[in-house]
Amino acid sequence: MASSVCSPRHSLFLSSSTKSPLRDCPVRFPACNAFHSRRRLVSATRLKVSASSPAPAVDHSPSRAASRAPTVVEVDLGNRSYPIYIGSGLLDQPELLQRHIHGKRVIVVTNTTVAPLYLDKTVSALTDGNPNVSVESVILPDGEQFKNMENLMRIFDKSIESRLDRRCTFVALGGGVIGDMCGYAAASYLRGVNFIQIPTTVMAQVDSSVGGKTGINHPLGKNMIGAFYQPQCVLVDTDTLNTLPDRELASGLAEVIKYGLIRDAEFFEWQEKNMPSLLARDPSAFAYAIKRSCENKAEVVSLDEKESGLRATLNLGHTFGHAIETGVGYGQWLHGEAVAAGTVMAVDMSHHLGWIDDLLAQRVGNILKEAKLPNAPPKTMTVKMFKSIMAVDKKVADGRLRLILLKGPLGNCVFTGDYDKKALDETLNAFCKS
Amino acid sequence: MASSVCSPRHSLFLSSSTKSPLRDCPVRFPACNAFHSRRRLVSATRLKVSASSPAPAVDHSPSRAASRAPTVVEVDLGNRSYPIYIGSGLLDQPELLQRHIHGKRVIVVTNTTVAPLYLDKTVSALTDGNPNVSVESVILPDGEQFKNMENLMRIFDKSIESRLDRRCTFVALGGGVIGDMCGYAAASYLRGVNFIQIPTTVMAQVDSSVGGKTGINHPLGKNMIGAFYQPQCVLVDTDTLNTLPDRELASGLAEVIKYGLIRDAEFFEWQEKNMPSLLARDPSAFAYAIKRSCENKAEVVSLDEKESGLRATLNLGHTFGHAIETGVGYGQWLHGEAVAAGTVMAVDMSHHLGWIDDLLAQRVGNILKEAKLPNAPPKTMTVKMFKSIMAVDKKVADGRLRLILLKGPLGNCVFTGDYDKKALDETLNAFCKS
Ligand SMILES: NC(=O)c1ccc[n+]([C@@H]2O[C@H](COP(=O)([O-])OP(=O)(O)OC[C@H]3O[C@@H](n4cnc5c(N)ncnc54)[C@H](O)[C@@H]3O)[C@@H](O)[C@H]2O)c1
Ligand SMILES: NC(=O)c1ccc[n+]([C@@H]2O[C@H](COP(=O)([O-])OP(=O)(O)OC[C@H]3O[C@@H](n4cnc5c(N)ncnc54)[C@H](O)[C@@H]3O)[C@@H](O)[C@H]2O)c1
Ligand SMILES: [Zn+2]
Ligand SMILES: [Zn+2]
Repeated sequence: MASSVCSPRHSLFLSSSTKSPLRDCPVRFPACNAFHSRRRLVSATRLKVSASSPAPAVDHSPSRAASRAPTVVEVDLGNRSYPIYIGSGLLDQPELLQRHIHGKRVIVVTNTTVAPLYLDKTVSALTDGNPNVSVESVILPDGEQFKNMENLMRIFDKSIESRLDRRCTFVALGGGVIGDMCGYAAASYLRGVNFIQIPTTVMAQVDSSVGGKTGINHPLGKNMIGAFYQPQCVLVDTDTLNTLPDRELASGLAEVIKYGLIRDAEFFEWQEKNMPSLLARDPSAFAYAIKRSCENKAEVVSLDEKESGLRATLNLGHTFGHAIETGVGYGQWLHGEAVAAGTVMAVDMSHHLGWIDDLLAQRVGNILKEAKLPNAPPKTMTVKMFKSIMAVDKKVADGRLRLILLKGPLGNCVFTGDYDKKALDETLNAFCKS
Repeated sequence: MASSVCSPRHSLFLSSSTKSPLRDCPVRFPACNAFHSRRRLVSATRLKVSASSPAPAVDHSPSRAASRAPTVVEVDLGNRSYPIYIGSGLLDQPELLQRHIHGKRVIVVTNTTVAPLYLDKTVSALTDGNPNVSVESVILPDGEQFKNMENLMRIFDKSIESRLDRRCTFVALGGGVIGDMCGYAAASYLRGVNFIQIPTTVMAQVDSSVGGKTGINHPLGKNMIGAFYQPQCVLVDTDTLNTLPDRELASGLAEVIKYGLIRDAEFFEWQEKNMPSLLARDPSAFAYAIKRSCENKAEVVSLDEKESGLRATLNLGHTFGHAIETGVGYGQWLHGEAVAAGTVMAVDMSHHLGWIDDLLAQRVGNILKEAKLPNAPPKTMTVKMFKSIMAVDKKVADGRLRLILLKGPLGNCVFTGDYDKKALDETLNAFCKS
């Protein structure tokens, strides 16, 4: 069975050129050159990143608040390309959002938790100095269990009652639940209207708002109904993280750690040094971690928008993680918590296979611990539960479960069904009773 | 105000080249050359049509049953291009459908009227000689009022219960209601799976199955929720028309007549001569009328997939027609019946404006009469009703209602808001009491 190698080092997709002419290197930090020169980039035409605010260097402990000029990550998808703005205080810069509003009508979709915190601010950002724009809002109940057809219909009801036409813009203000649901509504309303994401959780800022996957759950399965749909822009105001519960913050960091492990060794090393700043919600550290995460996801998505081999590597830890989420019941463990435990299991299995060295396995355990994330599945999960849940995974092909596993030095992974099945058993037995 | 001119003669979009090297001319009919040489074609790279069965010539009264080799219209949309197969007995040719089935799982969506007539035949066409393919079916209630979220969910329910994965294929078997709903389900299930259309009404065969518009109704508006989504292929078995009620048949002919009026004078002339054959459901005449209609729609859609100016011309008669449908209540008049009356009104207005001559206006009245279609709105419609319903039409821009009107010789139209408003009043007063 063919294994699709996804490491930057061995990949067919990624060039090994050490410098991209299109990348605006933040010149003020000398350490930064080394950083960029070691990082492997996709072919220069695919991803253009202009970083207008300086990145903290590998060993720099950020303290200075991010400047008002946002960091911009450009997601390159031909005529559906769009910018991600990242920075502190961006919701106080109306011109950023307003340049992406084409008609006069906007609808903001948010939930009962986020609305009292950021809805007024968002409406001001949309309307200040622009009295022609009128804004409606839909405030949905908060929770994954409300990411369903019923609440999708509430978005349509409000849009149609408000007589929104094709030139309107849908704005998602909230975490991944709101982003996914509002994005699918925007994709479907009048067969597609403008869409803007304002993600307010780490999970949404580093993962769900990038890549164009939108959708809702069906009673019988998560994310079963949806669309690939790209926004006009994504606006990440790092200040919104100040109100985020600790557990939600840590959950999002599991995805940040993932990007380092699958394809960006230097980013992982930066995280090892800067985890305390992230946990302290330092805006400059966060702006950098979000920028780097979005760049990594955007690169993968630009190369593989509709999910074939490469995009699957973004699911490191997710096969074990989904089994945990299903096993303990959705809502008990946060998604990132399950992914963290799943990552430990994938790393353990890679280690059993002899594909990575002891030290790397230890470093993964350590960084997850520092991020206050679980490093094992819950005690209630048995070998049998894992096996039966993973047997129906989407990544099973011709009876073999394909997994994302680490292979080689830090920053390299494979997506493969070609592994010794004993290693999987060893890992399952090491982490749970049978 | 700018008027976007859509006549082949004046258009910016359509070249005036008289012959396309890519068009496979059916050489057996001498009259056919004149025919093609007078017809204006889009730039040769955009539309490739290979007609493997001969077309009846203008003055040919078809009698011979269509040969088994289908007529093929290729819809050119880059990597989403697909063929439309047209002919008699195509549901008895399993290889046509089977070459477009990639996985092993198929779900046929149909309704309670069509299922007893054609579901078994369709399942046979999908499975004969191919025992690996397993077919599920969903049989929905029949009617426009069931083109809604509830029945969309029934398609998802069945798909998920049957554990259909990304490689499955959704097949729409029925009229436009089933095609639109199943297409939107295919676009959304797992963010998009394979889709095949088997249209069984004239309306679906000449219009709704071509162009990629899919969707459902909202209680507050028709077709408000949907997606642009292209099928793998469309299979038109003209034999299915044998069971279609007369009114439904005539309703579809209103769209056929429309294509002639807006852009294909020769096709209109062919219809003037062959209307009796169409009403007698002559398979060869129908195969030709469907082919020619699909070619016209496919050309327009290839040039303007997401609906800006050009695609709007497909709405000749539809602004008045929608007012009638809304005014008398959906379901009273069939869509094509309302469009026919609307076409008469648009033609009358074009005539008041001095944009077309008397003879053309008469010919439109005559052909609609021959097709047994209405040539005036119902007596219950008042000027006031027309005005208030048309005021909220999607084609109102900056307070002016843009209409598709005929202008110049047969086969030419404009989409414009730049007309003397008196002409609109004259037409409304001519057809209804105030
Ligand atoms: N589209 C994708 O590619 C993709 C990727 C990953 C996850 N997802 C989806 O994202 C969802 C998970 O996203 P999530 O982790 O953001 O969950 P979430 O949207 O439920 O947000 C988590 C919690 O934080 C609250 N919250 C949000 N912003 C806040 C703020 N600034 N201050 C205080 N509280 C705030 C929310 O109300 C919620 O209670 C799942 O539905 C998952 O399927 C999608
Ligand atoms: N997507 C598009 O571009 C597009 C274009 C035009 C119309 N439409 C949509 O199409 C729908 C109208 O389509 P329609 O006119 O086909 O209506 P329909 O689907 O309701 O079919 C009309 C009737 O004929 C029956 N029927 C279908 N095939 C039959 C057969 N072979 N023998 C006997 N009975 C048969 C149906 O069960 C129904 O009762 C509307 O919902 C409209 O919005 C879509
Ligand atoms: Zn995840
Ligand atoms: Zn129509």
